[in-house]
Amino acid sequence: MNPTPAPAQTFRAIDVIRKKRDGGELSRGEVESLVNSYTRGDIPDYQVSAWLMAVVLRGMTRAETAALTDAMLHSGEVVDLSSLSARKVDKHSTGGVGDKTSLVLAPLVAAAGVAVPMISGRGLGHTGGTLDKLEAIPGLNVNLSVAQFCRVLDICGCAIIGQTAEIAPADRKLYALRDVTGTVESPYLICASIMSKKLAEGIDALVLDVKTGSGAFMKNEKDAAFLAELMVETGERMGKQIVAIITDMDQPLGSMIGNALEVVEVVEILRGEGPHDLRQLCLELAGWMLHLGQVADTVADGRKQSEKLIASGKALERFRQMVELQGGDPRAIDDPKKLPRAPHTMILSSPKDGYLASLQCEQVGTACVILGGGRERKEDFVDPGVGIVLHKKVGEAVSAGEPLATIYYTAETRAARARGLLEESYQITDSLARADRALIHRVIGKSGENN
Amino acid sequence: MNPTPAPAQTFRAIDVIRKKRDGGELSRGEVESLVNSYTRGDIPDYQVSAWLMAVVLRGMTRAETAALTDAMLHSGEVVDLSSLSARKVDKHSTGGVGDKTSLVLAPLVAAAGVAVPMISGRGLGHTGGTLDKLEAIPGLNVNLSVAQFCRVLDICGCAIIGQTAEIAPADRKLYALRDVTGTVESPYLICASIMSKKLAEGIDALVLDVKTGSGAFMKNEKDAAFLAELMVETGERMGKQIVAIITDMDQPLGSMIGNALEVVEVVEILRGEGPHDLRQLCLELAGWMLHLGQVADTVADGRKQSEKLIASGKALERFRQMVELQGGDPRAIDDPKKLPRAPHTMILSSPKDGYLASLQCEQVGTACVILGGGRERKEDFVDPGVGIVLHKKVGEAVSAGEPLATIYYTAETRAARARGLLEESYQITDSLARADRALIHRVIGKSGENN
Repeated sequence: MNPTPAPAQTFRAIDVIRKKRDGGELSRGEVESLVNSYTRGDIPDYQVSAWLMAVVLRGMTRAETAALTDAMLHSGEVVDLSSLSARKVDKHSTGGVGDKTSLVLAPLVAAAGVAVPMISGRGLGHTGGTLDKLEAIPGLNVNLSVAQFCRVLDICGCAIIGQTAEIAPADRKLYALRDVTGTVESPYLICASIMSKKLAEGIDALVLDVKTGSGAFMKNEKDAAFLAELMVETGERMGKQIVAIITDMDQPLGSMIGNALEVVEVVEILRGEGPHDLRQLCLELAGWMLHLGQVADTVADGRKQSEKLIASGKALERFRQMVELQGGDPRAIDDPKKLPRAPHTMILSSPKDGYLASLQCEQVGTACVILGGGRERKEDFVDPGVGIVLHKKVGEAVSAGEPLATIYYTAETRAARARGLLEESYQITDSLARADRALIHRVIGKSGENN
Repeated sequence: MNPTPAPAQTFRAIDVIRKKRDGGELSRGEVESLVNSYTRGDIPDYQVSAWLMAVVLRGMTRAETAALTDAMLHSGEVVDLSSLSARKVDKHSTGGVGDKTSLVLAPLVAAAGVAVPMISGRGLGHTGGTLDKLEAIPGLNVNLSVAQFCRVLDICGCAIIGQTAEIAPADRKLYALRDVTGTVESPYLICASIMSKKLAEGIDALVLDVKTGSGAFMKNEKDAAFLAELMVETGERMGKQIVAIITDMDQPLGSMIGNALEVVEVVEILRGEGPHDLRQLCLELAGWMLHLGQVADTVADGRKQSEKLIASGKALERFRQMVELQGGDPRAIDDPKKLPRAPHTMILSSPKDGYLASLQCEQVGTACVILGGGRERKEDFVDPGVGIVLHKKVGEAVSAGEPLATIYYTAETRAARARGLLEESYQITDSLARADRALIHRVIGKSGENN
């Protein structure tokens, strides 16, 4: 990397495009000039899209990835949380089906004395979004200003909001361009997009949940591990503690998929109930967050503290408090029957005796989007009450006629389409050939050594 | 290739970008939809530039290249020369320094009874352009309408004009975008750009002069041969006879560089005089054009006929006629002193005894541009009278103080810069280590077999 940034007046976008096209490494100054000129509107979309495609096909070095992340981070406001005495730790997931861990982790980790300033996203493709789930709680507002966000954080130690106009404007502009030019699929660009937004939260440390399997964006573990290593190194180059955990997304996480249904399951977990896989993942991620938050000496200790905070009701109480501070109706937390629920249900039964050998996770997520639980187009209204409850997980025995899933729906036509897709996604076999997939695959990051 | 074009309403640019990004092959229908939608303005520059970069880095199959050429060709008017009974044959050069063969070939080949409908270009980078050279002749108009072009062709069998708005509009739009997005350098895109314009001339056959060496766009022979094969196959797939000749551009062609100076040298060749290398290349290319034009059984016979047409003065007379029909002053052909000439000259002498070992051809071309003989920016005025006359060719012996070149200039400051560059481009050695480079390297194309 060239330590001397090129003077602004000599920057020509065409030179940077050609350099990347020919496999060269851009200097920090070149990357900064490109990002800043584009954000200001000084260079046109058609030059940046050519550069993005060159990045997709030629890749980037670690130094370039860090320079890009840094330039995008500093294209907007970096939240100043220095007035909070607690360590600030967040978690980011690359997206999956039934993944509601953020709603469990924010209050649970805050209850342990670590601040969790979470800026989250909406559903994308077949995956759900934390903001859509939270908005299933009547009255809850995720569009807080940075000042309101800091106030909620100050009082209860956690807050979950959407991206504001001030945070990483370069990412918003670049992401919109990537979306329409076939340049989303690059680990370097994905890394810079995620890390620039997360580091703008003013955090000290970050736990990354990188999903792999049929329901994840990274279908195979090699790609997931590559992205994880890239994000860890990028964050470390920027002086943050980063741990990435590769976790399984070959079947939905937990039993419930759909916005209000997932809040129900979050409350179950915070009450010490709920499905085993979801509880296990929440405790693992919380253990890491407490450890990086310096309130637990080891991850195992962090896990134990988290179990106690659930058993004592303190984590649930913190969730109730956060919901109330963000304008939500806390009675929906005390009595989840007060959450929106679709008017009709339909049961999908097993066609035969056997074992549930696999469940096509991406198709289950898409079925939920079709029901109205996500967006097929950006402007679509999200129906909070629809969704799917799974009664069997992969590996379990099933009898002919036994319920596999319950579909919560509003419109018959959507339910029929979703049911068809769901039926196709179940594979029931006479014997169970496949070995169990572990939920936690690997931990990546220097901060994860000796734990 | 998919023989069924996709219906227009199902075409999405993003799908085509992704397919090419991932190394897939586009169907003919997809290529047509992309080119037509872009020419109509239905898809934005930023999607096309991403696709162009994917083409630069992923390449294209022969079928895709032919489909792209065909779509660009049919984006505009194809000149209808069916009323001319003669065969229509053109020549295209990939560009060099001192290459004025087009001005010799058009009248020479027309004098042999083959029609030469030439649509040419302007100088690009360090290379000269046929139109700029022609315009050095007082009064000559290269901006004829298609109807005027056909009239000149009908009377004298040859005409040389610039690209009109009706010819391959897709190429004009795509070329402008490639120029600012670092996507010029792709043999597939270069092939489609050249061939779509040439085939729009309504020709039966085409001789391609593909340059290689320090003054050519393709510096090494491998790249030149690849482009040549691609253009030959593309033209053949479209039912035309195509021959490509790889020729040397490691030193300027002939002795004169600069617009009016090159017309002087053209007249010398048409009078049976002038430098050996230029005459040799003109006769070789004319031989091929006569052979493909079916007035010569073999290339050797075509060469012999061409020599006779020069000796008899018929070729020169045809040039005079074409110049007059295009509005030019024919007295400038009879007496080249009537052509514009720069007011000052400066002589560059050899610093020592020895041999001219090499001459950096691109630098010589750039020196001529600096003098004002070409454009540094699109809107620059071209000075027809400036240029460089070379007194020594590579391999010749020189004595200390002996003139190497004469610079014809208008402005002192430009002359000083050009002289500096020219001095650097000469390499004079005590002995001659390098083997002579052949002027004609290879012939590529089925039409070239058994000749």
